[in-house]
Amino acid sequence: MKLHFLPLLALPFLSNAQSNIDSLFIKKMSDEIMTNGKAYDLLYELTKKIGGRLAGSPQQQNAIVWGKKSLEAIGADKVYLQPCKTPNWKRGGNDYVAIVGVNGEARMQPLAAFALGNSLSSNGLIEAEVVAITSFDELEKRKDEVKGKIVYYHSVFDPTKIQTFKAYGESGAFRRAGASRAAKYGAKAIMIHSLSTAPDNMPHTGSMTYDEAYPKIPAVALGPNDAKMLFGLAKSGPVKVQLQTYGFFLPDADESNVIAEIRGSEFPDEFITLGGHLDSWDVNEGAHDDGAGIVQTMEVLRVFKTLNYKPKRSIRFVLFANEENGVRGGNEYANQAKINKENHIFVFESDEGGFTPRSIGITAPPAQLAKFQSWTPLLKPYGSEITTGGGGTDIAPMLGVNKSTILAGLIPDSQRYFDLHHAKTDVFENVNKRELHLGAVNMAAIIYLIDKYGVK
Amino acid sequence: MKLHFLPLLALPFLSNAQSNIDSLFIKKMSDEIMTNGKAYDLLYELTKKIGGRLAGSPQQQNAIVWGKKSLEAIGADKVYLQPCKTPNWKRGGNDYVAIVGVNGEARMQPLAAFALGNSLSSNGLIEAEVVAITSFDELEKRKDEVKGKIVYYHSVFDPTKIQTFKAYGESGAFRRAGASRAAKYGAKAIMIHSLSTAPDNMPHTGSMTYDEAYPKIPAVALGPNDAKMLFGLAKSGPVKVQLQTYGFFLPDADESNVIAEIRGSEFPDEFITLGGHLDSWDVNEGAHDDGAGIVQTMEVLRVFKTLNYKPKRSIRFVLFANEENGVRGGNEYANQAKINKENHIFVFESDEGGFTPRSIGITAPPAQLAKFQSWTPLLKPYGSEITTGGGGTDIAPMLGVNKSTILAGLIPDSQRYFDLHHAKTDVFENVNKRELHLGAVNMAAIIYLIDKYGVK
Repeated sequence: MKLHFLPLLALPFLSNAQSNIDSLFIKKMSDEIMTNGKAYDLLYELTKKIGGRLAGSPQQQNAIVWGKKSLEAIGADKVYLQPCKTPNWKRGGNDYVAIVGVNGEARMQPLAAFALGNSLSSNGLIEAEVVAITSFDELEKRKDEVKGKIVYYHSVFDPTKIQTFKAYGESGAFRRAGASRAAKYGAKAIMIHSLSTAPDNMPHTGSMTYDEAYPKIPAVALGPNDAKMLFGLAKSGPVKVQLQTYGFFLPDADESNVIAEIRGSEFPDEFITLGGHLDSWDVNEGAHDDGAGIVQTMEVLRVFKTLNYKPKRSIRFVLFANEENGVRGGNEYANQAKINKENHIFVFESDEGGFTPRSIGITAPPAQLAKFQSWTPLLKPYGSEITTGGGGTDIAPMLGVNKSTILAGLIPDSQRYFDLHHAKTDVFENVNKRELHLGAVNMAAIIYLIDKYGVK
Repeated sequence: MKLHFLPLLALPFLSNAQSNIDSLFIKKMSDEIMTNGKAYDLLYELTKKIGGRLAGSPQQQNAIVWGKKSLEAIGADKVYLQPCKTPNWKRGGNDYVAIVGVNGEARMQPLAAFALGNSLSSNGLIEAEVVAITSFDELEKRKDEVKGKIVYYHSVFDPTKIQTFKAYGESGAFRRAGASRAAKYGAKAIMIHSLSTAPDNMPHTGSMTYDEAYPKIPAVALGPNDAKMLFGLAKSGPVKVQLQTYGFFLPDADESNVIAEIRGSEFPDEFITLGGHLDSWDVNEGAHDDGAGIVQTMEVLRVFKTLNYKPKRSIRFVLFANEENGVRGGNEYANQAKINKENHIFVFESDEGGFTPRSIGITAPPAQLAKFQSWTPLLKPYGSEITTGGGGTDIAPMLGVNKSTILAGLIPDSQRYFDLHHAKTDVFENVNKRELHLGAVNMAAIIYLIDKYGVK
């Protein structure tokens, strides 16, 4: 965090005087945010007064109203709702999984479990033997054993991956596609090891999708300790499990992205967007995922207004309606941008938790990336830098509007994220105020720099 | 955390082949620690089975026994106790502070408070008006108002300092020296705003010292919310406070540093030391401060043994007996090193919490620092780098043994440390397993590199 890289990193695009002005303004924003920042208080409201915000839930409707009112209170040239349909999945009941037999002997051992988001009801109690496997390759080899069974995928995180999102990407394949892969061979249900890094037994939900070609069998995630125990038992002999889930869909809900806009003074037709997603899973308060991104986005607007910063370009602060189980908010935002032929030069998301920031990740061609990386010395005092590769699920559809749109995202430290991601533990108490606000500092800094110097 | 600095940072001291061997071995250590690391389990034992470990307490005696047994179980060429005397301060009772009058009107409002470590009993109830000040300059200007009063120092952290240790250093002056500065002008007691970054009302204790020239008046730290409330009241009119504390000293205790040693195969007379301190305050479990440093030190020994790493130089793994209120452990270690004319080339401490590592901080002359900084690419995959400036309270006395000894320390992210440092909240539950173990990875890496390549 010391500035010892400075001698090696020249600032090819900025004069020293300019860089000094930027450094002072970023410091001013940082001082304001670290002293008077409101992100933490707003997060308290969103998590404790509203709560979990699954798309289609009354809480999500309340969150949209709260978001609009809060953005209006901060102030923008306009604050408006952008209507969109969202999926309307309901868990439907208390998911139930229990071991009822081991090696032919009766047992009754309930397991911590959540049905996966979008998964459908078991339509009553299922009882079947477990086929425990560790990979899709193994599934293909053992496909003849699967019929009438419950497939358990031992989707443990690789603990040696220091970047936990990489481990999540790999193990996540079983959550996303495991049900239909097993249903193809006649499985009655699937279970996975929760996508978790925590040394606890909390189950983690998360979205899955069915392949329409196969029966839509129930799918659950088990608490890590229970999952490991089950896997151990299943290796040494037959294990029988009972399972009941209740998932169903209501008709799509009418919801909205919430958008605040400041019109640019010089290039009003060049848009910069930053945002996070307002929805969460039903099992927690969605504090890190993605309450943090929501309130950081609002804080950037607040600090710009408080310091009377007048952007050259038009800036949109977007609370996306639905990411978790459909990305309908992001898709509609891109859809409207296309219809209105908007020119989006830079789209930024914070959706990796409100942890201490490590970098601003930017996906851009080499020449542009070099320009952005020349700003690293301006971010170093705030524990950050510019790294290559970044974006977010809500903003990815913007590439369909304009291929040269640059996607970027806040990259916080990732060690704690998958301890609580989609688990009951993603609550306000597990967000640290200074870490959350320091993320907002880095977001304000990059939006300011992009606004001032553009992307070319 | 991406390696985009690589092209700019050559490796002037290592060939590519050598660097590749190092990179592979560090990866092997990281994989072992992140998969099978025992630091977290050891921390559970230290915090939950032993608990808070104030020097002189039975818990601290138990911790010494536990430390020796645990190091022996891991295995070293020798494990031994190095006796030292430690201070034996006792809190003596439940510290009591209450507002009893505001603007001449009676009130009864207890305040969250801890007596400062080493502070002495109030010898009964003190009741006096508050003089609230924000600096020692103000104390000097208002010295005539202080006689017979209770001085309150509004020692709030500067929230704009991103490196929280800097804010701690500044505000800490009032905790360390505030009592005698006020006693000089006749104050009956002092109170400070707890040295805290947390948005809560937890009081934070910590060590203070008396100037023998003045009366040894009681000294307490108030919970942040109560302190701010008191400060607000005191600005608008007279506030009367009651205060009672019970601190006293027993004769110095007989304790020990716990030391495990591996003898070097090529340069057995060149010593590398790493360590943390075993003692803590009485009000918490000392989980981050400094249980983390203790178990990380033990984990480095464990990974060396597990991977059968035979060091060239002699390495000492030291659990220092007493840092918090006397640095007696570190002083005795330096004293014995001097008596035995040992050649210590590198001394390392982890005592800034078990948070995600940001860098290895090294205090060294420019030429040596350049050598160490050439290793940054080897640490980048583990979220770290080599930065200038580092050390620790326990190891600072080693400069008195040999001026060319290089001091270094683990620099974790500092955003959360002063939320819980010396407060009731410094407990096992607030330590994250991956963050703790990733710190040990970085420690193992730097000790390995220093052992292999020396410091010159």
